[in-house]
Amino acid sequence: MPKSAGSLQRRAFLCAAAVGLTALAPHLGFAQATDPLPSWNAGPAKARILAFVAAVTESGGPDYVPPAERIAVFDNDGTLWGEQPIYFQLSFALDRVKALAPSHPEWKNKPPFKDLLNGDMKAVAAGGEKALLELLGAAHAGATTEEFAAAVRDWLATAKHPRFKRPFSELVYAPMLELLSYLRANGFQTWIVSGGGIEFMRVFAEQVYGVPPQQVVGSSLELKYELRAGKPVLVQQAKIAFNDDKAGKPVGIHKAIGRRPIMAFGNSDGDFQMLEWTSAGPGARLSAIIHHDDAEREYAYDRGSKIGRLERGLDEAGARGWTVVSMKSDWTQVFAPAP
Amino acid sequence: MPKSAGSLQRRAFLCAAAVGLTALAPHLGFAQATDPLPSWNAGPAKARILAFVAAVTESGGPDYVPPAERIAVFDNDGTLWGEQPIYFQLSFALDRVKALAPSHPEWKNKPPFKDLLNGDMKAVAAGGEKALLELLGAAHAGATTEEFAAAVRDWLATAKHPRFKRPFSELVYAPMLELLSYLRANGFQTWIVSGGGIEFMRVFAEQVYGVPPQQVVGSSLELKYELRAGKPVLVQQAKIAFNDDKAGKPVGIHKAIGRRPIMAFGNSDGDFQMLEWTSAGPGARLSAIIHHDDAEREYAYDRGSKIGRLERGLDEAGARGWTVVSMKSDWTQVFAPAP
Repeated sequence: MPKSAGSLQRRAFLCAAAVGLTALAPHLGFAQATDPLPSWNAGPAKARILAFVAAVTESGGPDYVPPAERIAVFDNDGTLWGEQPIYFQLSFALDRVKALAPSHPEWKNKPPFKDLLNGDMKAVAAGGEKALLELLGAAHAGATTEEFAAAVRDWLATAKHPRFKRPFSELVYAPMLELLSYLRANGFQTWIVSGGGIEFMRVFAEQVYGVPPQQVVGSSLELKYELRAGKPVLVQQAKIAFNDDKAGKPVGIHKAIGRRPIMAFGNSDGDFQMLEWTSAGPGARLSAIIHHDDAEREYAYDRGSKIGRLERGLDEAGARGWTVVSMKSDWTQVFAPAP
Repeated sequence: MPKSAGSLQRRAFLCAAAVGLTALAPHLGFAQATDPLPSWNAGPAKARILAFVAAVTESGGPDYVPPAERIAVFDNDGTLWGEQPIYFQLSFALDRVKALAPSHPEWKNKPPFKDLLNGDMKAVAAGGEKALLELLGAAHAGATTEEFAAAVRDWLATAKHPRFKRPFSELVYAPMLELLSYLRANGFQTWIVSGGGIEFMRVFAEQVYGVPPQQVVGSSLELKYELRAGKPVLVQQAKIAFNDDKAGKPVGIHKAIGRRPIMAFGNSDGDFQMLEWTSAGPGARLSAIIHHDDAEREYAYDRGSKIGRLERGLDEAGARGWTVVSMKSDWTQVFAPAP
């Protein structure tokens, strides 16, 4: 046999062996190397996710869903990134009011601005929702969408979380980032549907989550189209246009997507109706709740918590077939290590 | 030379000749066979579109735009399909009120319902905007989004245009369908941004235009999340949530897409701000107006028209560098022949 023919045969054999091994791998315990969710411990939550994705992507299978209908929606605060000790966006808004204070000398003697500037958060809190809305209004209204996005970018680049001493955009849940990538690799469209402000989230959603701006749904202020120095701008008004929370979430989903999701992840009772709406559609559905039960690596809270309160969801998840994800036992890590 | 080798050589020669001819074709006047816009006559409008798409897709070129930012927006009524003698959606709404009349005996004696049911359109028109809004309210409010979509589907399957005697969904502009396909083949996202109702357009946008529901932006009513017989539904309310017209269009674009389009097509002054907003962005931009100047094949109207009034756009297009498309001279056909 001439040398070249022998080398060809050897290559063909190696090739066949490689193909055979790849096909056999899952049965031989080699699957670990290609685990799409390495930050998820083996357990019912992970098994449910893998089984669901396998079922809806199995061409010709009974639960098959065409790619155009593979819509997965995710709450943001407490589901994709942290929300304690206060919503990260609220941290931003308070920092922005402080940054704007030099141009507003009248704030020096006017609560709740005075209290915030003096660092008296107890007095701010005593002002209740009214004080908070006043501060939020000052942080948002009057800015063009481009000015506001620049302010968010600056803040994300400099501000740090009080406990973890890391930029807020690093305090995203590593297992959820894996899940988002895994879903997209399986033809899903991943959407954020959050009570948070849409102009705030869009600044980092693409870079941090891989979710483009048109797949971010959130609360919003009225915008006014104006010409400034001959150039058109969109100016944020001090009036809420849409509150994307609770029963507002299915409305926000319908308005933005026009299709019912087949998969929804939330973490608080503010997500209840989103999960209910998702689950009520025909065919295979997966609704899940991220349960914050890990005080050591993050925070532990649910019933009675002011932020991310979770009661009805916990009470009804079992009967409704919703998956409850334990951050403590289902996740091998919460945040990726600092880069 | 053995036969097989000769046949191989012949095949190689034919192959090379074919490759050579393909490469030469554009220079030899053979380009027609692969013209992506066969319903567009050669002329400045077509040349501008082709040059723009070539420029923004030329990798490494000075006007290159990455695919994620290739957003093209299209008005619907008068830009993608007809709008005369009355907006097609208004035809639907009036037909729906008639269809609902048996369940509303009180309408028999109450204008404008009485007038509509008696076919007295002059009396309806005399009622002005108030009468119209009352009829529109009755056609929309109270229905769930699913009931409403079913009503639109039924109407599209049965109703015909008074002049052309064809289903309304066939009265879409063939040159614009070609343009939508051509843009998508070049990595553009095609969006509809219309003053029309979003729930109405989404029913046919995917099938007729290839635009999925999440890429349809329109006017909308408030929606209320309710449980009916234990199942969640979204019920249309008799209150406008968003008016996606004039200065509302850039707002609607920003809220839904979060990115400024690089290309916009409209046909009336209701689209002026959308074109202005698109053109004001940095880099290459294409804004265009479809001019209805073809009374023979469709309708001729612009200044002073009640529907699709176009004045400021015509006056300023030249100075603003906007392309005006003449339906009469730029299009080889308006509607595709009936199937």
